[in-house]
Amino acid sequence: MTPFKLSKELIEHIEQLIENKSNTALLDLLGEVHYADIAEIVDELDLPEATYLIKLLDSDKTSDVLTELDEDVRERILKNLSNEEIAGELLELDTDDAADIIAELPEERVQEVISNIEDKEHAKDIVELLRYDENSAGGLMAKELVKVNENWNVLTCVKEMRAQAENVTRVHSIYVVDDDDKLKGRLSLKDLLTTSTKTQVSEVYIPKVDYVNVHDKAEDVAKVMSKYDLEAIPVIDEMGRLVGRITIDDIVDVIKEEAEKDYQLAAGITQEVEADDNIWQLTRARLPWLVLGLLGGLGSVFIMEGFEEALNEYKELFFFTPLIAAMAGNVGVQSSAIIVQGLANDVVKGSLLNRLLKEVGLSLINGSALAILVIIFGFFIDDIGLRFSLTIAVSMMSVIIVAALIGTFVPIILDKRGIDPAIATGPFITTSNDIFGIFLFFYLAKLILGF
Amino acid sequence: MTPFKLSKELIEHIEQLIENKSNTALLDLLGEVHYADIAEIVDELDLPEATYLIKLLDSDKTSDVLTELDEDVRERILKNLSNEEIAGELLELDTDDAADIIAELPEERVQEVISNIEDKEHAKDIVELLRYDENSAGGLMAKELVKVNENWNVLTCVKEMRAQAENVTRVHSIYVVDDDDKLKGRLSLKDLLTTSTKTQVSEVYIPKVDYVNVHDKAEDVAKVMSKYDLEAIPVIDEMGRLVGRITIDDIVDVIKEEAEKDYQLAAGITQEVEADDNIWQLTRARLPWLVLGLLGGLGSVFIMEGFEEALNEYKELFFFTPLIAAMAGNVGVQSSAIIVQGLANDVVKGSLLNRLLKEVGLSLINGSALAILVIIFGFFIDDIGLRFSLTIAVSMMSVIIVAALIGTFVPIILDKRGIDPAIATGPFITTSNDIFGIFLFFYLAKLILGF
Repeated sequence: MTPFKLSKELIEHIEQLIENKSNTALLDLLGEVHYADIAEIVDELDLPEATYLIKLLDSDKTSDVLTELDEDVRERILKNLSNEEIAGELLELDTDDAADIIAELPEERVQEVISNIEDKEHAKDIVELLRYDENSAGGLMAKELVKVNENWNVLTCVKEMRAQAENVTRVHSIYVVDDDDKLKGRLSLKDLLTTSTKTQVSEVYIPKVDYVNVHDKAEDVAKVMSKYDLEAIPVIDEMGRLVGRITIDDIVDVIKEEAEKDYQLAAGITQEVEADDNIWQLTRARLPWLVLGLLGGLGSVFIMEGFEEALNEYKELFFFTPLIAAMAGNVGVQSSAIIVQGLANDVVKGSLLNRLLKEVGLSLINGSALAILVIIFGFFIDDIGLRFSLTIAVSMMSVIIVAALIGTFVPIILDKRGIDPAIATGPFITTSNDIFGIFLFFYLAKLILGF
Repeated sequence: MTPFKLSKELIEHIEQLIENKSNTALLDLLGEVHYADIAEIVDELDLPEATYLIKLLDSDKTSDVLTELDEDVRERILKNLSNEEIAGELLELDTDDAADIIAELPEERVQEVISNIEDKEHAKDIVELLRYDENSAGGLMAKELVKVNENWNVLTCVKEMRAQAENVTRVHSIYVVDDDDKLKGRLSLKDLLTTSTKTQVSEVYIPKVDYVNVHDKAEDVAKVMSKYDLEAIPVIDEMGRLVGRITIDDIVDVIKEEAEKDYQLAAGITQEVEADDNIWQLTRARLPWLVLGLLGGLGSVFIMEGFEEALNEYKELFFFTPLIAAMAGNVGVQSSAIIVQGLANDVVKGSLLNRLLKEVGLSLINGSALAILVIIFGFFIDDIGLRFSLTIAVSMMSVIIVAALIGTFVPIILDKRGIDPAIATGPFITTSNDIFGIFLFFYLAKLILGF
């Protein structure tokens, strides 16, 4: 493989070929290129050129290209395709990818497109998949799989499998069902090939098979598959019937999307955006948390106005507020990030009391180290006196402990209430810790210094 | 599958059985449990019990258990096993997993353990794998694969494959090599089975095959495999020789680890830790960034001391510093997170000038919205006068623009210099933006208000 590299020259060359309608040259150039790479090219083209290319290439290739495109680009291209053309593309796709594309179409087109799909079985399967939540096992699975009846003999089995396998890109397992379509187990290819053709499936199948339920959450499916190193897993419905199969490539996407979402939440971005999204999408994603931060900042203004009398004698206190806010924010983000990850990986065990003691212990260690630095700075460098330096150090240490506790327990509480704890990292924690921290800092300073 | 659920009762039950040395009961209880679940159990046991269990169970199971254990737990258990026992476990593992375990052993034991591995071929393969960086394709690959020579006929091929397949858990592809072991392509199982046994491999193989080089970075391998939806990829060395194979389960681990590392960096945690690590590990991971934050905060103290003369007439300026710092920090984190993710996904394209204009535009929109809120607050609620409110709003807006630019360009510059841009998010950006922001805020206020 000479790795494919998208270049400005390549895009310009392709644009030129499209302008000249050099169809043969285009087909030659792109014939050997992987659909995922063609999708990258199409993402870079203007809409008319992109549509031209999609219409030019074979639909067994363009259907795959469509699944790999940037969502915005796909939406615009689909607008330029007729219902028949879209139906033609969907016919080439596995049911799960086809359902994902249909789900993005405007409602009024869905029925039209589906009624144009020539293979009625395929259409029926797609319609079934549309019923499921996109973040559930049902939303991830494809209908394509290889299954055999436990009452068949090996000969029938092999014949049926051959027919089924035509529609399945990669056969990971042969699933065994009973007359009611209930999942009973799996069959190893080796056993199948080394057994007499008259043997019944029920005599040779392996009754142990991992599966998930159709309404299981996508992230739980990802956990099961990555924990047990599975490349495919069957999906059953409420009656135990085999209804689909999820493959590892879809799980890789789930894991990546989940990670990106958590990362963005921690950075104060409320919806999935990319660096190349337009300015309005980016504004919508970023402004809400900034407003929250602003409100928190205005809250701090009030708090400091409340301690205004300290300005005469202890004005240095006000110079230390950004430091206090930064410490409260950083400690809170650290604590919450570790807990959020721990919750995601199921490693947060043990009692809440133990966790509380651990966080306090950790804060005492970190806080002491930082307090010593503050005392050295205050006493030797900033020359604000030992008593004042000690006050700041003690107040800061208390802020650090409280910040760590907030950072630890807010995600745990959210998680217990069924709310995604990931929203508790980033701006949410920094903002609330800023306010609590600054208040606590001034309050303790007031108690100690007595202003 | 009744999903396995780790419970306190189960652990206590197992501890009881171990104490009573009820080996038969233990074997019965754990016989059907998946090795990944047994690893979760072992992680929860005390060292003597954990070691007892590992020694009790079959080594074809415990070897897999070892690969799934928490790193600390594994290290302690391995200390309790003899070189012969470890060698016995390694014999059961694929070469990649075996090499990963050996790499964790203290140097003085490595040679001893390897010389105790009975299968000398297996030992040789492991030694070869130990040569590679753990974050490279060589560090991820296993030596187990199925390969055939292009000069063989189909009959020889099938015979050889059968022998090789015994050592390979999952045969994803049959790779074709020439007499020098150079990777030439792959063979489809279907073609192999439908071709006359006398046909030469060179006549039927597919010369197109994706591959990676042994020194490619692990994250690049992950990108290729997830982009092209591959379940396995062959690895070649500098001479084009087929040296190993990487499977998707290892890539899933790479993707998860990469995401966790980035998330932790963004949260100001410098090394991989888990919620259940001990307090010293957590301190080591968290203190460095806190010290950085502290130094930044002390920098702010100096800056504000420099603008002390504003205290008489414009003391409110000091009340607004936490707000300014929060805005600078939040905007910086948002910008950098989007860029870091964009760089990771290769979607940061186009010229730097365009990106600069976009960030400035975005900051103007967000900044204006926030400035209006600040003016409303200052004028109507906090009663600090229109001129003063406007000053704060204008200064804040400038801070937001500068913060966005720093957040955008620091990661880009780091990336261009070959440094992981992920370190630029979180504390690094918030701290530098705090300092720049506070200075800029006071400086502009001074210019406008003239104190």
